[in-house]
Amino acid sequence: MGPDPAVAAVRVAVRRVLADLPKDAVVVAACSGGADSLALAAAVAFEAPRAGRLAAGVTIDHGLQDGSAERADGVVRTMADLGLDPSGSIAVTVDGPGGPENAARDARYRALDKAADRLGAAAVLLGHTQDDQAETVLLGLARGSGARSLSGMPAAFTRPVATGDGGEERTVRYLRPLLELDRGTTRRACEAMGLEPWDDPHNVDPAYARVRVRHEALPALEKALGPGVTEALARTAKMLRDDADALDELAARAYDEFESPEDGHSVALRLEGLEDLPRAVRTRVMRMAAVKAGSPPGTLAAVHVDAVDRLVTAWHGQRHVDLPGGLRAVRRYGRLLFGPV
Amino acid sequence: MGPDPAVAAVRVAVRRVLADLPKDAVVVAACSGGADSLALAAAVAFEAPRAGRLAAGVTIDHGLQDGSAERADGVVRTMADLGLDPSGSIAVTVDGPGGPENAARDARYRALDKAADRLGAAAVLLGHTQDDQAETVLLGLARGSGARSLSGMPAAFTRPVATGDGGEERTVRYLRPLLELDRGTTRRACEAMGLEPWDDPHNVDPAYARVRVRHEALPALEKALGPGVTEALARTAKMLRDDADALDELAARAYDEFESPEDGHSVALRLEGLEDLPRAVRTRVMRMAAVKAGSPPGTLAAVHVDAVDRLVTAWHGQRHVDLPGGLRAVRRYGRLLFGPV
Repeated sequence: MGPDPAVAAVRVAVRRVLADLPKDAVVVAACSGGADSLALAAAVAFEAPRAGRLAAGVTIDHGLQDGSAERADGVVRTMADLGLDPSGSIAVTVDGPGGPENAARDARYRALDKAADRLGAAAVLLGHTQDDQAETVLLGLARGSGARSLSGMPAAFTRPVATGDGGEERTVRYLRPLLELDRGTTRRACEAMGLEPWDDPHNVDPAYARVRVRHEALPALEKALGPGVTEALARTAKMLRDDADALDELAARAYDEFESPEDGHSVALRLEGLEDLPRAVRTRVMRMAAVKAGSPPGTLAAVHVDAVDRLVTAWHGQRHVDLPGGLRAVRRYGRLLFGPV
Repeated sequence: MGPDPAVAAVRVAVRRVLADLPKDAVVVAACSGGADSLALAAAVAFEAPRAGRLAAGVTIDHGLQDGSAERADGVVRTMADLGLDPSGSIAVTVDGPGGPENAARDARYRALDKAADRLGAAAVLLGHTQDDQAETVLLGLARGSGARSLSGMPAAFTRPVATGDGGEERTVRYLRPLLELDRGTTRRACEAMGLEPWDDPHNVDPAYARVRVRHEALPALEKALGPGVTEALARTAKMLRDDADALDELAARAYDEFESPEDGHSVALRLEGLEDLPRAVRTRVMRMAAVKAGSPPGTLAAVHVDAVDRLVTAWHGQRHVDLPGGLRAVRRYGRLLFGPV
């Protein structure tokens, strides 16, 4: 008799990403103790030795709740019991900028970067599921800034390690093997293996936008559109990420082609031929120019870029377009100029 | 004292699209009697003569509800009172395929096509608002088929007129001037002008997915993500439409470049260089090939295209990929072949 189907599904997903890593590679399972990352840790512990890889486990103690240190110790014991070796916890201080969620994430990733670097790990495996992905897409919707903001979390990414020694730059690779599995599968996998996941009280606190999306918005969408919305959102994220990658690459090439520096303006684009670019590429080129000239990317909105675009496509003598960061775009002598007011 | 701000907003939106039409053009306001199209009709009646355009009004009697003929007559009287000349109603028979909503839409557009053609109209103006657009985006989400399915309704499109006489092909141009206004604005505009909109009981019937999206999913999203979700969805639609246009155009060019017919297979793509295309373009090329070979576009899903893509990017001797429509894709002699099983 084989393993429970949920356990098998998580293992297959982990096996796939391990197969792409070098023989004898060290992989780190990042585990909060929640159902998703606990199922991940168990699958990594099972699959890694069979694939000739070494598996370690790390949990992060954010120190944000009473008893978090004891809980972290419990997770370490569970990981060790599963066979992750070494298994350990890292205590971090959450005091960075950008709200408590961002600060906690930053602190967590920095700690994982260092742990992975110290272990010489080929990859850190994260337990995000299709449900997390769907929530991330909907959260990105609120930004309304196009394909990139709807493209969710990547299945693989790297982060530079802050070494502080000015030496060669090292990076840590992160992988999300469970992005195509739903949360029900990880929960059933834990149950089948007799593992007791920890339910973070933050995960039901409606003060968090993600919690409201999970418990209110997604169920309402499912009710309106039928089951499969979570999967559709995750699939959409993947396709829009491909789209954004392709268009960003095209825009970067077009930018190089149209960049036409002029004295006194930090950034200038040649007008000739600019209008013939597809709008999706042209507006990306303009956004790049504005950002290069110093406009803050987080504040520079579609409405600004649209106004700059009208300097090219609907020119009727507009004086200039004001942009965030004390900048303006003007059309002059066959160029689009981006500079200080 | 100028007009009410809501009335002014609707008028400005209409004025903008009229400015792009030829002098002395005839424009048709399509009016159901609901708040959106009633505000539109009033603005068209007001703006068209001032811009030297002629304004007509058409309402469609779908014959789906008791008293629909009387209601249509009432809408005609209102349009005539507003100054739309001629104003008239057209009775249609809703019996087409694809469910009652699709059948009603098809019948409506065919009637509008003919009316506009008969009047020699430069454009038919439709009253869809930002709220309709946001709903359309969410309805597209359920399809989960990428940028195109999330790109909502276009602000402008044309339809061929079924003349049946085999003569020159004529088209009708449709415009949606109110896509950047919300439903509250059209309702306030009607109120300010003393116009009484008709509330279609279908608009509160939860049997319709659109109604569930409007009354349940969108409010839940607003509650989770904050106000501005409707606007963000509409903005997203516009950007994703640009993206999809650019990528479809690139894919069409790449298709021509890679098409490499072979005896016995209706469609074939040259493998050499195919893998170097950006994934967003490559998967579109493969989708085009499959559709050209006879796979039904509505059934051909991302999962099929992904499997075909793996014949190119993750080739390990797969036999073939089965596609909807009794087709399969195989890799053979430097080509990707699409043909009958």
